[in-house]
Amino acid sequence: MTGYVDSERIERVHAAIHRAGLDGILCTMPENLLMLTGYWSRIGLSLMWFPAEGDPALLAPETELEIAETGWVRDIRGYAGELDAARPRAEMSSFVSERLRKVSGKIGYEASFAQIAPPPLAGEPHVIDKGYVDMLATHVGQERLQDATDLIYELRSRKTSHEIEQIRRANQIAGIGLKTFQEMVAPGQSEIEIATSVERAIAVAGMQDYSARSVRAWAQICSGPSTAKAWRLYVQASTRRLEPGDLVMLELGTVVDGYWSDLTRVAVAGQPTQQQLDIWQIVADAQNTAVLAIQPGVTGRAVDTAARGLIAAPGYGDAFVHVTGHGVGFRYHELPPLLSSTSEDLLTAGMITSVEPGIYLSGWGGIRLEDNVLVTESGAERLSTASLTLTP
Amino acid sequence: MTGYVDSERIERVHAAIHRAGLDGILCTMPENLLMLTGYWSRIGLSLMWFPAEGDPALLAPETELEIAETGWVRDIRGYAGELDAARPRAEMSSFVSERLRKVSGKIGYEASFAQIAPPPLAGEPHVIDKGYVDMLATHVGQERLQDATDLIYELRSRKTSHEIEQIRRANQIAGIGLKTFQEMVAPGQSEIEIATSVERAIAVAGMQDYSARSVRAWAQICSGPSTAKAWRLYVQASTRRLEPGDLVMLELGTVVDGYWSDLTRVAVAGQPTQQQLDIWQIVADAQNTAVLAIQPGVTGRAVDTAARGLIAAPGYGDAFVHVTGHGVGFRYHELPPLLSSTSEDLLTAGMITSVEPGIYLSGWGGIRLEDNVLVTESGAERLSTASLTLTP
Repeated sequence: MTGYVDSERIERVHAAIHRAGLDGILCTMPENLLMLTGYWSRIGLSLMWFPAEGDPALLAPETELEIAETGWVRDIRGYAGELDAARPRAEMSSFVSERLRKVSGKIGYEASFAQIAPPPLAGEPHVIDKGYVDMLATHVGQERLQDATDLIYELRSRKTSHEIEQIRRANQIAGIGLKTFQEMVAPGQSEIEIATSVERAIAVAGMQDYSARSVRAWAQICSGPSTAKAWRLYVQASTRRLEPGDLVMLELGTVVDGYWSDLTRVAVAGQPTQQQLDIWQIVADAQNTAVLAIQPGVTGRAVDTAARGLIAAPGYGDAFVHVTGHGVGFRYHELPPLLSSTSEDLLTAGMITSVEPGIYLSGWGGIRLEDNVLVTESGAERLSTASLTLTP
Repeated sequence: MTGYVDSERIERVHAAIHRAGLDGILCTMPENLLMLTGYWSRIGLSLMWFPAEGDPALLAPETELEIAETGWVRDIRGYAGELDAARPRAEMSSFVSERLRKVSGKIGYEASFAQIAPPPLAGEPHVIDKGYVDMLATHVGQERLQDATDLIYELRSRKTSHEIEQIRRANQIAGIGLKTFQEMVAPGQSEIEIATSVERAIAVAGMQDYSARSVRAWAQICSGPSTAKAWRLYVQASTRRLEPGDLVMLELGTVVDGYWSDLTRVAVAGQPTQQQLDIWQIVADAQNTAVLAIQPGVTGRAVDTAARGLIAAPGYGDAFVHVTGHGVGFRYHELPPLLSSTSEDLLTAGMITSVEPGIYLSGWGGIRLEDNVLVTESGAERLSTASLTLTP
């Protein structure tokens, strides 16, 4: 009754656990379970044991068994009573106790994930707290618990063929939102109307036309002069209505069955000015140059330098205030790789990185173009085929 | 330049810190900062020090200073460079070091929050990880760090007049979604279309008509026989199209500027059957009886027993598979109070609890009605005025 078996992934995980000198890893975060088992938990109260040798085992609420079986773990134990607040942890405790009875070495766990990808239960995600870590320590002993965060991020950074197809699909589905955005941008529309229409269009089409089980989009819209601050970590769409000539920027995170895309587009409400077209062209050229610079063996710094050069040449160097890109796939943002002026991360085939140069000019506005790019054996490939243009 | 000063809240926090024998508490979770400072962080990279005596102090990214000033803390330090991944924690570290230089007693922190309320940056929330706790321990020493989770939940459980008005507003804005739901339920509509329309209507109207700064809704829709399983922790709206006579259930979490409402309504696609009307009436009577049972000094158990009695009388006792209610306000679900068959939680004026009896019959369907109810000095008050009826 199991779904697709990603042997490539299973092999890499076993190898990584071995290399780290661990006897196995215990994970509960949905984004990590997805990578390790092919199963994306809806509520986040599942636990996985992946031993250095042998098959992984899973504990999941009974109400999620059907979804758990879409992954490749065959040894799944279900538990009832997820509504009883104390029950999931008690079940996890027995699961760890039983599974680790004969294990005496070091155990990796998710100690240092400072940001999380929300599961479908995004209105109230479960997170790792002191009680969870204390429970692990009760069975394993504090001295045997090892922080496996870097190991997990490293595994996440290089996607398998199966994962690449899933992230490509997330990009395609997100493309529906980009189209909605470009169609809606016009004088009189409000930022919040556009943002929520983009989110709705993606969820509906993703489920109805692409047969996804779970789709959610997170659209940030800003317009006019405030696009000059569109580099911020979060931009709240406002009730501002577009005026003729406004630059409008969409920053868009989309999660489809656990796989993420991260895209940015700009549009003009009405006719673009020559300056808007010129700066757009510089950013587009910088993005293209960065994509062309991507290939296995190249550093993140080299790609960043390529993009930055194009923007600095016409004098906008100081206006490109952020990095050129970051990993994406199991979350909106994940490292490695980082494409920055100091990054020594080596690009490897199978990595997926955003490429997102931008120019932000106070009082004028900002333009950023972002795509997700796969590092291939011979170069790079954009995962989105959506138009980049300033006007539809 | 500060906003509303909730003296009632500040006084209670000082008293609670004193009672707990702490020198102060350090908090970073947006939902707790909102309660403690009146400021709801957009990205979640802020830190607050609330001393046992004297005024609280806040560290916030420069890009959020304007929002930080909507709260009542006057001593706010901004920091630049939030885009640099290591920067926020380094800034937090200096802030803690400086603020706690002359403090020698025990310090409370958010150790055991196993679920979180997403801030506006809901696509990638920041959470407490080992690195954050280690950073606190560096300055304070592990032995001086105390788990303040219960203290914070206790403070959260009894809302101030100001907070009650904010939660009432969240209920009003959520009501727009309930109306959209009741208008849309008809044969041929799909669950995902209804869910996303509800979410969009709430966000647009909340921002445009109620001048909220940030609104997001989380709608779970199920229909037909699957409503019998609508008690699950998370129900994913599917592409299923409604058929004539289907029961349809909306479970709706709404966050308005950080304050939550949690509502459930049912509707029938077309004409309800007599059995649907009868069971709806039992649930409505149970909900009403529970609301009437609520007053200061009553236990959660007593309210649960009141609701359960109404449902058991006609023989549906086993079909009411969950608790009668839970606290709500700074998150979708928060305890105390819990309204369950074993809860000794004493209701107190200012508490806000959900009241949500339900009947779930395998093969037939489920009906749950949920409102948020304020415990007043003399009884109880529903915070939502939205219609409960099965047909619009």
